[in-house]
Amino acid sequence: MRKFHKITIIGVGLIGGSIGLAVKRRRLAREVTGVFRRPSTLRRALKRGAIDSGTLDIKEGVRGAGLIIIASPVLTIPGIARKALGSAKSGAIVTDVGSSKGWIVSEIEKMEGRCRGVHFVGSHPMAGSEQAGVEAARSGLFEGAPCIVTKTARTDRRALKTIVEFWRSLGARVEMMNPVEHDRSVALVSHLPHIVAFGLAGSVPAHSLKYGAEGFKDTTRVASSDPKLWADIFLTNRSEILRAGRIFERYYKKILKAISCSDYAKIVKLLASAKAKRDRFSYPPSCG
Amino acid sequence: MRKFHKITIIGVGLIGGSIGLAVKRRRLAREVTGVFRRPSTLRRALKRGAIDSGTLDIKEGVRGAGLIIIASPVLTIPGIARKALGSAKSGAIVTDVGSSKGWIVSEIEKMEGRCRGVHFVGSHPMAGSEQAGVEAARSGLFEGAPCIVTKTARTDRRALKTIVEFWRSLGARVEMMNPVEHDRSVALVSHLPHIVAFGLAGSVPAHSLKYGAEGFKDTTRVASSDPKLWADIFLTNRSEILRAGRIFERYYKKILKAISCSDYAKIVKLLASAKAKRDRFSYPPSCG
Repeated sequence: MRKFHKITIIGVGLIGGSIGLAVKRRRLAREVTGVFRRPSTLRRALKRGAIDSGTLDIKEGVRGAGLIIIASPVLTIPGIARKALGSAKSGAIVTDVGSSKGWIVSEIEKMEGRCRGVHFVGSHPMAGSEQAGVEAARSGLFEGAPCIVTKTARTDRRALKTIVEFWRSLGARVEMMNPVEHDRSVALVSHLPHIVAFGLAGSVPAHSLKYGAEGFKDTTRVASSDPKLWADIFLTNRSEILRAGRIFERYYKKILKAISCSDYAKIVKLLASAKAKRDRFSYPPSCG
Repeated sequence: MRKFHKITIIGVGLIGGSIGLAVKRRRLAREVTGVFRRPSTLRRALKRGAIDSGTLDIKEGVRGAGLIIIASPVLTIPGIARKALGSAKSGAIVTDVGSSKGWIVSEIEKMEGRCRGVHFVGSHPMAGSEQAGVEAARSGLFEGAPCIVTKTARTDRRALKTIVEFWRSLGARVEMMNPVEHDRSVALVSHLPHIVAFGLAGSVPAHSLKYGAEGFKDTTRVASSDPKLWADIFLTNRSEILRAGRIFERYYKKILKAISCSDYAKIVKLLASAKAKRDRFSYPPSCG
């Protein structure tokens, strides 16, 4: 794995902080710098040991960095990328960790032509939790986690290779695909489950919460996630989420209809087919 | 807590086996007998140490027992209760662990009058997992778990008190309510989340499973549950599940509509309201 002289992380919360900790533990860079909006988060990231140094200025932060990782809320990523691409040294690679990719990658590719020798490659490490903030960061967050790296007609092949290797060195299982494929797959396995969890938690009357047990706990865990972060993700992957919603509703409504008609055989068939899929899924995967 | 000379558990899988282990660990009975349909499950329960003795005959199994617990699939409970009530000694109490209560309790109360001195009280310990079988049983399963005990106009008050004390002695947080209230509350916090989890797992294309991470894992965990067991539960709580489905769909569709209209403020409001509820929920509860 290529070692960097300097890696800059813009936005050092749960994901950015975990990248900093993982890079430092594996000594993948001589220096890890964080870029922050607020002095308080800079102090917290230094205290957590996720970065070596920090600044509130993007231009200063990216100076001399070989790898720049944007780990801020999705809607802010293109604007930050514009500044980073404009200030990075020649040969630098910029990536992000946004949960939707079509909008982010197309916005950034529009500006990329003007930044000679600096390349962007989109990433989506599928790790995280309902918690937020650098205090929840941990160096092993990406071990065994899927990480999708986007490849388009405009993606620089050497930069792509470097980004793939970078995530692999953090323990992630890297998959390459175009941003449209990413948004479609992730809408069903991540974005829609969040919407459904928010829907379940939101529809339970407060006085019934005390009857919830393990099933309710797990099914709704991600409804404790940050509403603004997720509103951004939903809006930047709108059409694929609406499509995923229609697919889910078809299955869900078939189950409810079979219950409504007391069709035992049909209910068992639908549940067994869902169970067969769920039984094939394991996370982290047992076979690398 | 009253000690029993003999406790009989009819159906010794995950729940029945955990009751056996908990009773034995706490020495709540001199003898724990299991009743089985198949010799192979009798052997597995003896091997697991969940019972002291076992039989395939209900009449023989309940003989001399002060407490009889029916831990079999919901549809089988009234039929088994009929046999248990008819063979139990005077003064014995029969309870069950079925996940729906209206149908079970009304079926059993129809027959109860003929069994002088033997009383039935419905229970629903809300513990378990997507796993099945006595091998997954554990003595601490009920610690901190909600357990709903049903109270109707026909419930014997002394038998009710004994059953409440029994579940408390196993560490459960007991709530008393009538079967209709039970079925309504549980439809929203347990039955519907199962349907939604089956729906999510069932609608993900097999080739996208590898992109699932922690969110998908937790949101769909209960979709690995036994299809036949849950089909029975859904059919015996049909009308409340359909009602819960309408409540969930209203919230879920509001979120999707706000996404469809790119109404950022509305999305954040709906997610924040769901998050506030989910953040109030903890399991096992931190304050006893």
